[in-house]
Amino acid sequence: MEESSEGRNRGTPLACAACKLLRRRCMQDCLFAPYFPASEPHKFTNVHKVFGASNVNKMLQDLPEDQRANTVSSLVYEANARVRDPVNGCVGEITALQSQLADKIAEVERLQVLLEAEKSNRSPSS
Amino acid sequence: MEESSEGRNRGTPLACAACKLLRRRCMQDCLFAPYFPASEPHKFTNVHKVFGASNVNKMLQDLPEDQRANTVSSLVYEANARVRDPVNGCVGEITALQSQLADKIAEVERLQVLLEAEKSNRSPSS
Repeated sequence: MEESSEGRNRGTPLACAACKLLRRRCMQDCLFAPYFPASEPHKFTNVHKVFGASNVNKMLQDLPEDQRANTVSSLVYEANARVRDPVNGCVGEITALQSQLADKIAEVERLQVLLEAEKSNRSPSS
Repeated sequence: MEESSEGRNRGTPLACAACKLLRRRCMQDCLFAPYFPASEPHKFTNVHKVFGASNVNKMLQDLPEDQRANTVSSLVYEANARVRDPVNGCVGEITALQSQLADKIAEVERLQVLLEAEKSNRSPSS
C-alpha cells in the first residue's frame, strides 16, 4: 500500500494517536500529530482522559511552537500521575518531595551543629 | 430576601461558583457545590479552564465522597500551577524540588565526610 500524504487525511494508519483515539481525520496541519505519533498509541489516552482533547488543543494553540513539546511532556506526566493517584495526582509527589526536602534540610542543620561541636572540641589541643 | 432551598434551583446568588460560571441551575444534589461555594468565586475558574467541568465531574463521580475534598484541593493546586506556568505546570515545581533535594543530599554526604574526618583527626589526642 502506498502511503501518500493524502492518505493521512483519509484516516489511514498514518493518523496520529490523538486523531485515532478521537476517531477523526488527521489533517496535514493537525496540532497533535507532532507530539502524539501513531507509534506511541497510549501517550494521548490519559492526557485526553484528564484534560480533554479540546482543552489541550487550546493550551497548545496559545503557546509558541517551540514550547509545545515541553508542554506536552508536562501534560503527559501530570495526566499519568492523576491516573495513578486520582486523589492527589502530581500534588502527591510535590507533598512527598517537600517532606523529603524538609528532612534533608534538618539533617544538614544537625550535621553542621555536630561538625561545629567537633571543631571546637578539637581547638584547645590544636 | 428569604433564602429558600427552592431559591437555589432558580439560579439565585446561592448557586455554587461552578454553576454560576457555567451559567446553569445549581441543583440540590450539585456535585460541585460542596467544594466550590459561591463565597469563593474564583476557585473554579482555573480548574474549569485546565481540566474542563465535565472531566472534573467525571473524576469526582468516580471517587467516594470522603476523597472528593482532597481531590478538589489537588485539582485547584494543579490548575493554578498550569495557569501560572502554562509550559511546565506542576511538573516545573517537581523538577525544582527534585533538584533542591539532590543538592541537599549531596550536602548531607559532604558534611558526613567532613564530620568523619574531624572525628578521626581528634581520635589520636583523645
